[in-house]
Amino acid sequence: MRNILIRLSYNGTAYHGWQVQQNAKTVQETLQDAVEIIFNKRESITGCSRTDSGVHANEYYCTLRTENQIPCERLVNALNGNLPFDIAVLSCAEVPLEFHPRYDCKEKEYIYKIWNSEIRNPFYLNTHLHYKYQLDTEKLDKVSKQFIGTHDFTSFCAAGGSVEDKVRTVKNFSVERYGNEVIMRVSADGFLYNMVRIMVGTLLDVSSGKIDGDSIPQIIESKKRENAGVTAPAHGLYLNRVIY
Amino acid sequence: MRNILIRLSYNGTAYHGWQVQQNAKTVQETLQDAVEIIFNKRESITGCSRTDSGVHANEYYCTLRTENQIPCERLVNALNGNLPFDIAVLSCAEVPLEFHPRYDCKEKEYIYKIWNSEIRNPFYLNTHLHYKYQLDTEKLDKVSKQFIGTHDFTSFCAAGGSVEDKVRTVKNFSVERYGNEVIMRVSADGFLYNMVRIMVGTLLDVSSGKIDGDSIPQIIESKKRENAGVTAPAHGLYLNRVIY
Repeated sequence: MRNILIRLSYNGTAYHGWQVQQNAKTVQETLQDAVEIIFNKRESITGCSRTDSGVHANEYYCTLRTENQIPCERLVNALNGNLPFDIAVLSCAEVPLEFHPRYDCKEKEYIYKIWNSEIRNPFYLNTHLHYKYQLDTEKLDKVSKQFIGTHDFTSFCAAGGSVEDKVRTVKNFSVERYGNEVIMRVSADGFLYNMVRIMVGTLLDVSSGKIDGDSIPQIIESKKRENAGVTAPAHGLYLNRVIY
Repeated sequence: MRNILIRLSYNGTAYHGWQVQQNAKTVQETLQDAVEIIFNKRESITGCSRTDSGVHANEYYCTLRTENQIPCERLVNALNGNLPFDIAVLSCAEVPLEFHPRYDCKEKEYIYKIWNSEIRNPFYLNTHLHYKYQLDTEKLDKVSKQFIGTHDFTSFCAAGGSVEDKVRTVKNFSVERYGNEVIMRVSADGFLYNMVRIMVGTLLDVSSGKIDGDSIPQIIESKKRENAGVTAPAHGLYLNRVIY
């Protein structure tokens, strides 16, 4: 048995997230279909993270367990030749059998892309949140630093998750402007369900004045989802980097 | 009668170019439809340039002749509210009645976007040419300078155009690399039919060795389309700037 680590990138617009589900196209299933065409056999693929419907990945990892002896370099080309344009395999490498793409992950980085202009950008329909009101990115960058540290992030977790332990360590958070494009960037040892989208939505609510910029520590402390801001839409969110 | 200059941007993927034609969706017609909804009257719109099917515009200008007295700022919002996402009106301004968006244009700049990596970028299906073989952009930048100057560009004009005078002045040409993204940029007082796409295709043929990098002056001199390179695909091309 071999354990092959696959690094990929995908535009999530057409997918109901990563994880296989009934009656909906997902990235995992599309990848398993491509593997089945190449190996003539259905193989098991394990992802590093669930992603929501419409969420993108600049970098995503999964493992493929197989008896097939195809060299890794040939597998990259074979997969790309059998996948649709919106999923690209970047590289493949053999890893020890005990390697697990989710449990062995040390850190993940997400970015959230915003087109911050009164007028929409016709190229960014599915890739950026269009936010019309001027964001004070210097202020939001300062506010975002309050997320950094080891906290119980219950206030920033959507209902419906099954995870008990909601303590996570946010290592970095930044808000940067490049012209009309605003990039929010956050890294942590792990994330709760919708955690990044709620943190981004909270920063947008700080910008609009609905939430006080100094109150992030109290919101965290309260452990109440209703004290945090809205859940920002999925289509601005990208899993950007996974560190093992 | 007022003459309103409209500055817009569009993602050309879903359109058969700018110019109205039978049985095909175009940007001009889509804009005229939006104006008709707002004014309750069909008005005439004149563009600064034809663009091919699938070609994009970061900046495009057209004029709208109307008796309607709507203020320009309100017109911007009304148009954006009645246009699909892939067309955005950036600004409107009243200009003299004799102003013509095509004839009064002094200079246009096009850019051509290439994703230069063996592996495709899942976000760039309709916005970049995917070119797998490594482009030597420093060399191509030098080669591209041979296009600069006042020349008869018959060799870089597709058959079927009705224009007699094929002399144009190319003011600048550059080839720049940003990681795996390569941007070719060319400005001129005017362009012939498919001229930018044939110049880009010729540079790609120089890169692959099909065309000698020093032979551009001879290709121009020959006035024979068959001596130039292929016509690069439409979807990497953007009208980027129009100067009056």
